[in-house]
Amino acid sequence: MSQNNRKLAIIVHSGTLDRLYCAFILGSTATAMDMETHLYFTFWGLNMLVKGEMEKAELPATYKHMEEKMKKALKGMKYPSPYDLLKRMKASGLLKIYACSPTMKMFNVKKEDLIPEVDEIAGAAAFLDLASDADVTLLV
Amino acid sequence: MSQNNRKLAIIVHSGTLDRLYCAFILGSTATAMDMETHLYFTFWGLNMLVKGEMEKAELPATYKHMEEKMKKALKGMKYPSPYDLLKRMKASGLLKIYACSPTMKMFNVKKEDLIPEVDEIAGAAAFLDLASDADVTLLV
Amino acid sequence: MSQNNRKLAIIVHSGTLDRLYCAFILGSTATAMDMETHLYFTFWGLNMLVKGEMEKAELPATYKHMEEKMKKALKGMKYPSPYDLLKRMKASGLLKIYACSPTMKMFNVKKEDLIPEVDEIAGAAAFLDLASDADVTLLV
Repeated sequence: MSQNNRKLAIIVHSGTLDRLYCAFILGSTATAMDMETHLYFTFWGLNMLVKGEMEKAELPATYKHMEEKMKKALKGMKYPSPYDLLKRMKASGLLKIYACSPTMKMFNVKKEDLIPEVDEIAGAAAFLDLASDADVTLLV
Repeated sequence: MSQNNRKLAIIVHSGTLDRLYCAFILGSTATAMDMETHLYFTFWGLNMLVKGEMEKAELPATYKHMEEKMKKALKGMKYPSPYDLLKRMKASGLLKIYACSPTMKMFNVKKEDLIPEVDEIAGAAAFLDLASDADVTLLV
Repeated sequence: MSQNNRKLAIIVHSGTLDRLYCAFILGSTATAMDMETHLYFTFWGLNMLVKGEMEKAELPATYKHMEEKMKKALKGMKYPSPYDLLKRMKASGLLKIYACSPTMKMFNVKKEDLIPEVDEIAGAAAFLDLASDADVTLLV
């Protein structure tokens, strides 16, 4: 990562399929544009970093009735899964993934439970430092 | 739009009544303050740009039981509907509306299905460029 | 508050337990880092500023089935409640709390209904001015 790259910082609070896609499509686009991308996973988002969980992501209660139709459409388009998008971003060398330490304690998640793509276990202070210096900051 | 205007950029991911109001009240206030306002509609938000859909926006599952009461209160206040707010913003000349192209493919929405106020069909890269240069960026 | 402090501005649109924690953990961390913290409560968030309401905050419909387990875990950790976190932030002298005036009208909430920690009743323009000048801006 160079000092000249623009920077995107996202708090991934949500763990539903629609919002993971939202965060990861933004992130993939950002890395394709040579922007550094920092994803800080907390709460339901953090739970999606546990091995095997991202594959099971669902739509939220409000849109649950559209889940089957949407999954079919994505399959028909051969659209990459959230985890595929995450691995692609990672391959760019421009993605850094943070797991929220207080959430890990709250949900009793251990470091060894997390997918290997996680770069750092960190508290909110790390995110605020990052975000203060980012060009675009969002909470999903 | 002038180079000197401050700029607000919002990703409208949500399609529920409460969040459309949130985005559009911020947007209306911004245009009244002479800020350029850029609304990028994706996912459930994009679906609200389909003709006739915004009028049917509902509260999310968590607050569904409050919908009737809220709609009555809004009517009693003669509060403008989300679409009315959008048209007012548009009339200011300071609003630009973007429809997310990958979402359109995913939900099989065609250009001719969208309300005429949409300015541009664009991918996430367009939003990231806008947001990098904005004074306030939010995701709703 | 000094001119040299970094600034965090959050719109608290949500009123669910997970999202109040998200906003308040970020806010507590920010005040501990000597950042000015501005929380603008609107919609469901505003309703949580009514005396006695924050104590009753619940998880959203999607995660309702996890509420009991989560509340037990928080109790086991002796984790501070959302209102406790808010009072701690307030004690730092770095927190300012805004109640959204249009929401108050919509939900028929009076000034005297609000917790005493509220600093100001204000419209969206006040938030946009704050946010234009903030280092980190988020919507929860």
